[in-house]
Amino acid sequence: MKNSNNDPLPSWHEGSVKQRILDFLEKVTTPDSAHYVEEDERIATFDNDGTLWVEKPLLAQMAFYKKELLGADVLENASKFKRAVNWSIRGVKDLGGLTKMLVGYFRVGITTDEYRSRVSKWIAEAEHPRYKCKYTELVYQPMQEVLQLFAQHGFTNYIVSGGSANFIRPWADEVYNVPENRIIASSSKTRLSKRGDELAVKLEALPFSFEYRSGKVLGIERRLAKRPIAAFGNSLGDVEMLRWARTTAQSLCVLIHHTDEVREYKYGPDPRLYFGKSTLKFAKEQNWQVVDMKNDWRTMFSFEHDESFSKENK
Amino acid sequence: MKNSNNDPLPSWHEGSVKQRILDFLEKVTTPDSAHYVEEDERIATFDNDGTLWVEKPLLAQMAFYKKELLGADVLENASKFKRAVNWSIRGVKDLGGLTKMLVGYFRVGITTDEYRSRVSKWIAEAEHPRYKCKYTELVYQPMQEVLQLFAQHGFTNYIVSGGSANFIRPWADEVYNVPENRIIASSSKTRLSKRGDELAVKLEALPFSFEYRSGKVLGIERRLAKRPIAAFGNSLGDVEMLRWARTTAQSLCVLIHHTDEVREYKYGPDPRLYFGKSTLKFAKEQNWQVVDMKNDWRTMFSFEHDESFSKENK
Repeated sequence: MKNSNNDPLPSWHEGSVKQRILDFLEKVTTPDSAHYVEEDERIATFDNDGTLWVEKPLLAQMAFYKKELLGADVLENASKFKRAVNWSIRGVKDLGGLTKMLVGYFRVGITTDEYRSRVSKWIAEAEHPRYKCKYTELVYQPMQEVLQLFAQHGFTNYIVSGGSANFIRPWADEVYNVPENRIIASSSKTRLSKRGDELAVKLEALPFSFEYRSGKVLGIERRLAKRPIAAFGNSLGDVEMLRWARTTAQSLCVLIHHTDEVREYKYGPDPRLYFGKSTLKFAKEQNWQVVDMKNDWRTMFSFEHDESFSKENK
Repeated sequence: MKNSNNDPLPSWHEGSVKQRILDFLEKVTTPDSAHYVEEDERIATFDNDGTLWVEKPLLAQMAFYKKELLGADVLENASKFKRAVNWSIRGVKDLGGLTKMLVGYFRVGITTDEYRSRVSKWIAEAEHPRYKCKYTELVYQPMQEVLQLFAQHGFTNYIVSGGSANFIRPWADEVYNVPENRIIASSSKTRLSKRGDELAVKLEALPFSFEYRSGKVLGIERRLAKRPIAAFGNSLGDVEMLRWARTTAQSLCVLIHHTDEVREYKYGPDPRLYFGKSTLKFAKEQNWQVVDMKNDWRTMFSFEHDESFSKENK
């Protein structure tokens, strides 16, 4: 019954996945529905890397660190850092130590303001190695539509990321329409430095919170004291968050599966097992909605060279 | 020129203090003013205990703990706890240890949901020892008007409290119109407990963040990555937060001074010194607005027995 002008998710192919999202929104927002959810309980949480934007071949934050840390001001430890980057991508066990170390490099007097302004500068200029465009252009258009549609349905959207809050904040409001206060993400310890009338918040070389796996649930709970009724993720790091959403009376749990090696990258949610199962198998058993990017998404990115890019890669 | 029907702060006596608040709001919200501030930068932060509601003779949270911890389920450590409460009120140095200990009592399997539901139950029933009414009736009416007026002027109000976020959240939205996500307050470490399909967040016996003094600034910065342009406090614990607000181009820093021993309690901001000065002297030197509760507030509480209570105490 919908004509294309009224299609709320034009980048999604017609089918059961799209329909499930639309059905969910309808049932929780229709006042006389048995599944109606009040507006202040309409909380949706979205993983960032790999769920809202491209995370390959290197997480944007890692690309930023690579650039920043190989810059003139911190050159002396470059080789040590390079080794750490290569080594960190392999497993999450290493990420804690890496975060600690990375922040350590920034420690030399850097304030959170300075950190964020470096992020702003980098993200305005940096070019993705494959797509040759800005990282913020590599936001998935179908997920942009989901964010917008949820907001239109009275949902409050939160980004819940293992990445650093200070890395996401400088651009998230413009790109996702999610303001500073709705970023729930990893952070380092900070301290207040006072010099006469000058006050500044400086980064310390110690992790404060790590919003990854259970840490995502704890971060949400600490911030909201509420459970999301919709959660979107793409990896093992998101499993607990999706399970947490699943404990509510109405829920939509979505796992984005990277199946499109032509337009994007092809890889599984995580090589490691969750209770002896792959994340994908676990998701299916839980009746979470798995999105097959290749077959469910008509458009991948908003920018025009989507088509020409696909041709190039044929 | 204002008639009483249009008075936006009817519980405030006419005078320089009230005028300064109104002038501030006018200058930052008038589009052609040189001091205009965009809506998303209009952030106001409010201390809770002693700034928005009564904190004597015992912080409400302490009264709650006293009741909870002397309850049947934790009786065995009652005397130890009692000693700690008496001893903690003296100085903040002890509060860290106290918090740790208090949370420790709750540790035996208590979830954050359970903690908050105990708070809800307590706050619905507990009676203040002097006023013989609910604690939430002891919110200062003049501050309620300020919260409302700021919200009407496009401000986003945050509670920034050394008290526990989980203690404030169950009632803050109803009482202050400040939702869960705008409570920036102390917290304990939590962990995710999984039993089959059951997920629960449980409190650990370790502090996670302490939003007191510098901790208030760090808590605000971690949450918002922005500085408040208006800040309200009443004690040494709020000095850094007010100084932080003061670093913005336009700011209103307000120190509530408890001068009314008839309607409320008479006490100074803190016996301890800040850079060798009393908090009050420091506030005046910084040109912060000091509110003299006795002389600046026409009404103290919204409830009716304000008058009869004053009579009783004459």
